[in-house]
Amino acid sequence: MALNPQYEDIGKGFVTQYYAMFDDPLQRPNLVNLYNAELSFMSFEGQQIQGAAKILEKLQGLTFQKISRALTAVDSQPMFDGGVLINVLGRLQTDEDQPHAYTQTFVLKPIGTSFFVQHDVFRLALHDMA
Amino acid sequence: MALNPQYEDIGKGFVTQYYAMFDDPLQRPNLVNLYNAELSFMSFEGQQIQGAAKILEKLQGLTFQKISRALTAVDSQPMFDGGVLINVLGRLQTDEDQPHAYTQTFVLKPIGTSFFVQHDVFRLALHDMA
Repeated sequence: MALNPQYEDIGKGFVTQYYAMFDDPLQRPNLVNLYNAELSFMSFEGQQIQGAAKILEKLQGLTFQKISRALTAVDSQPMFDGGVLINVLGRLQTDEDQPHAYTQTFVLKPIGTSFFVQHDVFRLALHDMA
Repeated sequence: MALNPQYEDIGKGFVTQYYAMFDDPLQRPNLVNLYNAELSFMSFEGQQIQGAAKILEKLQGLTFQKISRALTAVDSQPMFDGGVLINVLGRLQTDEDQPHAYTQTFVLKPIGTSFFVQHDVFRLALHDMA
């Protein structure tokens, strides 16, 4: 049980790095390095995926050409195994679609002096009302 | 490392029970029993709170008279300590305010045959656009 006192900086730093990679089609395949071969779970719009290879497949199957986003809030909490829970609320727009609110939750698991993404849950609020 | 195969049912059941209590002013104080005296973290609109007593104080300080909500999605994942990660995307309306999208993340930690809420992150999307 060791809470990491740097959890805020780790959360914000991770999110900045993650989205910089995600939003650049050339860098997006490198996201695979942030996940574990077996021990990473992703839920993407309700679809459940396990392991870095299948997660990469999902990421490479995304068909939009461009994406822009604005983050409303990034909330981080320290976890008792030294990990960090991160909850993102934001808005994103792909190609010429309407912008939508979305939420994404990450659980970072410590491994040596770094982290991998153990849990990743993404949901778009498709039914936004005014 | 023991994944709980019932994570979907646990997640959905917990969320149903939690909001039934939260949305009823008479039952809301009982939510305190779902948190641990020391080991529970809450982030409420960015405010960080630790421990059941302070969490109860926060919940009892909420000033709306009535609340209604609709859940867009409840995504659950099994965690490697037997816990469950739950991410809720929904819309809620308090009193006569406009409805807003919100996100709430729970991490349930196993304790004996039950669970307590180890992590709870709540954010309202106040700046919804059409």
